[in-house]
Amino acid sequence: MPTKAYAVRSATAPFAPFSIERRAPGPKDVAIDILFCGVCHSDLHTARSEWPGTRYPCVPGHEIVGRVTAVGAEVTSFKAGDLAAVGCMVDSCRRCLSCDDGLEQYCEHGFVATYNGALDGSGENTYGGYSTAIVVDEHFVLAIRHEEAQLAAVAPLLCAGITTWSPLKHWGVGPGKKVGVVGIGGLGHMGVKLAHALGAHVVAFTTSPSKREAALALGADEVVVSKDAEAMAARAGSLDFILDTVAVSHDLDAYVTLLKRDGVLTLVGVPETPHPSPSAGGLIFKRRQIAGSLIGGIKETQEMLDFCAEKGIVADIETIAMQEIETAYARMVKSDVKYRFVIDMASLKAA
Amino acid sequence: MPTKAYAVRSATAPFAPFSIERRAPGPKDVAIDILFCGVCHSDLHTARSEWPGTRYPCVPGHEIVGRVTAVGAEVTSFKAGDLAAVGCMVDSCRRCLSCDDGLEQYCEHGFVATYNGALDGSGENTYGGYSTAIVVDEHFVLAIRHEEAQLAAVAPLLCAGITTWSPLKHWGVGPGKKVGVVGIGGLGHMGVKLAHALGAHVVAFTTSPSKREAALALGADEVVVSKDAEAMAARAGSLDFILDTVAVSHDLDAYVTLLKRDGVLTLVGVPETPHPSPSAGGLIFKRRQIAGSLIGGIKETQEMLDFCAEKGIVADIETIAMQEIETAYARMVKSDVKYRFVIDMASLKAA
Repeated sequence: MPTKAYAVRSATAPFAPFSIERRAPGPKDVAIDILFCGVCHSDLHTARSEWPGTRYPCVPGHEIVGRVTAVGAEVTSFKAGDLAAVGCMVDSCRRCLSCDDGLEQYCEHGFVATYNGALDGSGENTYGGYSTAIVVDEHFVLAIRHEEAQLAAVAPLLCAGITTWSPLKHWGVGPGKKVGVVGIGGLGHMGVKLAHALGAHVVAFTTSPSKREAALALGADEVVVSKDAEAMAARAGSLDFILDTVAVSHDLDAYVTLLKRDGVLTLVGVPETPHPSPSAGGLIFKRRQIAGSLIGGIKETQEMLDFCAEKGIVADIETIAMQEIETAYARMVKSDVKYRFVIDMASLKAA
Repeated sequence: MPTKAYAVRSATAPFAPFSIERRAPGPKDVAIDILFCGVCHSDLHTARSEWPGTRYPCVPGHEIVGRVTAVGAEVTSFKAGDLAAVGCMVDSCRRCLSCDDGLEQYCEHGFVATYNGALDGSGENTYGGYSTAIVVDEHFVLAIRHEEAQLAAVAPLLCAGITTWSPLKHWGVGPGKKVGVVGIGGLGHMGVKLAHALGAHVVAFTTSPSKREAALALGADEVVVSKDAEAMAARAGSLDFILDTVAVSHDLDAYVTLLKRDGVLTLVGVPETPHPSPSAGGLIFKRRQIAGSLIGGIKETQEMLDFCAEKGIVADIETIAMQEIETAYARMVKSDVKYRFVIDMASLKAA
């Protein structure tokens, strides 16, 4: 199945039209006509080789929503015409402890990433959602229960949504908990919305005083400008959990000190240069923890999507045409987006 | 009550005899004739101002065992003649959430340290166990159920024991768990003994190949020389929990990578210079955690002492006279002790 896509052919080349081949659906496969694809910062890191290991040509995109066009004979959960989604993973070993626990993102043998992954068997490069169609094993396809009109804004839930949802749920965020969200961008804005919807008291931390009103509108109960030493000091030892979405090197101790005894600071982004070393004393004197969390498993992704459908939660997005991707990346680097770009794939189909 | 002690009067002065005044026991106080006091590395750090905030004269010692000589009218748990112990704390606010939870070491208002602490009200400096007697509120006095002949070797349980016991218990170490203990010194040797007695599979990590046999004798199931890259790599992703007792700056990632998904590396020592910054990716890709833990609460200290009495566990010690403390410190700096010095206070009484 020849499929239109947008690819980069090297770390310095701009995106350009590219034709990829999608496999004919096997017995357990779901074929999806891609309607929208979110633009994640990982797409940019990978396309430009800011992380090691990019294989070119590279077709990014792992916030995929669309409509099922065909299903294999053994597929039971989807039929043609259904809305469906694909996130960061298209396969995993499905035999290890983590896969058994529904945490395919921690597969002991490594999950197969939706793009820049290595297909099991062939090791062939995987191509993501900057394309008009995709074929994925049913196990890695999510059902969408939102209104169809919300579809574009659902796309970012597949990465930004689940990456914040999984740690919030794992560390028991809910009513009675005071939760910090550091960084109000693509991930952070979802973190604030989800933590608020889960019933927690949410404190948003930002370096930009200009984001105060927007963060309150997202559901934050308090907004703290992290450069305001007095406001930071006033919150020492007050938070149960902090979700740190900032993927550039920064002082973790400034946040660790805001945690109560037994509080957890969870990182979801890998900075290009390491964070300054956190203080051992800051951890020891209140039994605090610094943790990391990676996207989320398929089961919890479906739970998050269903929770969001029920609560009417979607991402705040700006829709672009596929042809505008370079401009979007340039703006994303400057944090000039509230809060996620989503590509309308009609633009690629019409081209 | 004039009491013989050994004190340092400055960061560079040697220990010398010193007379301190112990208060007459109040209604809730227990007066203890000190028989033995363990020598903790914290004693040295404090005496020599290697940590900030030492007040001189300084009388260290927080691994105290002895015999009750008198009790106040309201004391219910101890009577004259009982064996008793005092650890790192002699008071706390007893009203905050941590105190209510039996975790006085995390008292929101700061616990009163056994030495170099500030007495509530007066702010007067506290003097520790390098002395012949101490008077402590009943709440902070522990009962000893070991055989009296084991008394000297019980002393280190009050700091080295509880500092390793508390995190082992808090993070669920027991049968079916694979547990690493990093550093086989005063703390680490207790960590190995306790983790083994709790039923875990224990992997001891040491920089010294010469400690292999000793670590096995302490109860380790495996011993890994941490400089052996092959042996380290062979254990990647295999451990549920790691107790890191090494208080000098070292590469944490070497141990983080040995943790399974959801594994926890817990630090119990504050290095003089920070550890190299741990990799965010190492945490994120398996939802691992780096935590800290501080000694332990009074309730869990008693549980640890009772567990050790039942299992016949004591520290491995070398008994010294009070007058030998400078030599002992010099040897401790070279890690030339298996594994804890304990001062026999008869030496000070006879002086």
